[in-house]
Amino acid sequence: MSSEQFKIGLNDKLMGQVNAVLIGQHYIQDKGSFTLTGGILSHDPINAGGSASTVNAALEGFVRAAAIELPRGIRINLVSPTVLKESMSTYESYFRGFVPVDASRAALAYSKSVEGLQTGQIYSATR
Amino acid sequence: MSSEQFKIGLNDKLMGQVNAVLIGQHYIQDKGSFTLTGGILSHDPINAGGSASTVNAALEGFVRAAAIELPRGIRINLVSPTVLKESMSTYESYFRGFVPVDASRAALAYSKSVEGLQTGQIYSATR
Repeated sequence: MSSEQFKIGLNDKLMGQVNAVLIGQHYIQDKGSFTLTGGILSHDPINAGGSASTVNAALEGFVRAAAIELPRGIRINLVSPTVLKESMSTYESYFRGFVPVDASRAALAYSKSVEGLQTGQIYSATR
Repeated sequence: MSSEQFKIGLNDKLMGQVNAVLIGQHYIQDKGSFTLTGGILSHDPINAGGSASTVNAALEGFVRAAAIELPRGIRINLVSPTVLKESMSTYESYFRGFVPVDASRAALAYSKSVEGLQTGQIYSATR
């Protein structure tokens, strides 16, 4: 993998979400919340997943740090799901041996983040 | 903080070390090892430390993933120290309440990584 290939994940999944927060914090209402999306590869790496592991771990660090700095009661959490059952037709060969979850299970984590009051949390949706 | 300011840490501390591995893996000898440097902010954030927390967490994800993919018995670990006593004259105002360690303590973690046989490990040098 080249440096340029590696940077695709940083620019897309990482900076896409980081920029949403850096810019959005100035427009979101008081006590609003951000919910970002990471993934299980941060701690459970697979073949050809180096960039994804890096990006997903980076998002965990970002959320922990942003949570203590965001003003006006703004919250931020990360949903970190495993592979979804609905995605297994595409990703099955990468996620051998992983226990997939229903998308509805991952949706609960988003609900917890948006509708709860916690901040700086990593919500794993892995079972 | 702007997106461009945020990216300085990604391009410097993160991609500097990632590139050393992506390129260096083709030149390092069999059973050679890489030891990267992260830091405590990955899990213990401070004011104005959002970029550093992101980068240090990213390095943890990268090392976990790279360890399972590197060929020829090549190893990789991360040393993740807290603030050093020797750096407190510069960083003391940022690291209020943190317990600094001697540089010689952090050096032990590098020794463990280079001279041991483990791979994919995060060696915290925090006490």
